[in-house]
Order: sequence, then C-alpha cells, then structure tokens
Amino acid sequence: MELETKYRIIHNGEKAFGKGPCLLLEKVDKLGSLNKAAGELNMSYSKAWSIINKAEKMFGETLLETHTGGTDGGGSYLTPKAKELIKAYKGFCKEADEVLDELYKKYFRGI
Amino acid sequence: MELETKYRIIHNGEKAFGKGPCLLLEKVDKLGSLNKAAGELNMSYSKAWSIINKAEKMFGETLLETHTGGTDGGGSYLTPKAKELIKAYKGFCKEADEVLDELYKKYFRGI
Repeated sequence: MELETKYRIIHNGEKAFGKGPCLLLEKVDKLGSLNKAAGELNMSYSKAWSIINKAEKMFGETLLETHTGGTDGGGSYLTPKAKELIKAYKGFCKEADEVLDELYKKYFRGI
Repeated sequence: MELETKYRIIHNGEKAFGKGPCLLLEKVDKLGSLNKAAGELNMSYSKAWSIINKAEKMFGETLLETHTGGTDGGGSYLTPKAKELIKAYKGFCKEADEVLDELYKKYFRGI
C-alpha cells in the first residue's frame, strides 16, 4: 500500500496549474521551443499552446516569450514569472510529499 | 487561486481507497444498507459492490457484513476494520489539508 497524491492550483473551479503545465514549461526551458517541448511530451502544438495560454490568463502574467527568425530560427523562452512559478510548484510538491509521507505512516500504520 | 488536493491509497498501481470509497462506507454506516447508500450516491448497486469488494481484496479484510431477512429485512453494516479505515483516512485528510494549506501559502504567497 502506498499513498498517491495530486496537487493542482485552481481558479474559479478551473485548473490553472499542476504537474502537466509545470513539466511543459520545464521542457520549453530546456529545449527553447514550445513546438519541441510539445513533441517530447507527445502533445499537439495547439494543446501545449492552450495549456500555456490558460495558465497565463489565470495568473494574469506572461509565461512564455516567443521570438521569431534570427540566426537560431527563433524559439520560446520562459519569463522570470514562469521560472518563479516552476520553482514554487516544485518546492511545494517536494515538501508536501515529504510531510504527507510522514502523515500517511502516522495514520495508516497497522492498517 | 486555491489549492486542490487528491489523496488515494494505491496497491500495485491500482486504487485501493480514497474519497469515493470512504464516502460510500460512511453512507452504508448511516443507512445500514449498501443498496440505499449506492442510491444516495447515484451509483448502481453493482458499482458500489465492486468498490467495496476491491477495497476488501486490497486490504485483505472484510469491510462489510451483510445479514438477510429478520424483522428489519436485513442490511449491511461495517466491520471494526472498516470503521478504523474511515477514521484513519478522514484523520489523514484533515491534517494533510491543514498542513498543505500552510505550505501553499509559504510557496505561493506573492505569485
């Protein structure tokens, strides 16, 4: 037996941020492209774009900046707000998992 | 913005217990009948039965005792193990929600 947890941030009952959007942003940060990030996650570009777009609307902040052309052919990069958001979510999840692991032992020991 | 959490207990990757099974057991305890409990939760009897059956297999314990006939027409009641399980899960959820609420404030304040 083990505990499975899920944490998501909602706004007016709608999902604003969670594991999926966080992973997508991390991939964009690593690959420098929303299209490549979507591809690595087996997700369509339009799906990836809508996840980012929805989170941006919820937070009222730009998360992704896109530049086109140039010698590198353009790409997307994260805004400082997006990096802050990833850091907060990952920090939260790590500490939450640790605390809940202890609580799980406390309540379910012997069951 | 607010945090939404989900806690479930899994066994070999399969769901063993969570919010739904807990609520179902509580209803059976209150109504004295699995059929009535299923009805109140807009769930078929077979679905309710399979939830209980699955949890019983996962925990290797009987959770529901059923008696038929008698002056009250029979019914279902919880075993001490089922009551212990409800108590543990509810206690866990309450404390987990409190702790995560604090953690959420800690990490997402100002975001």
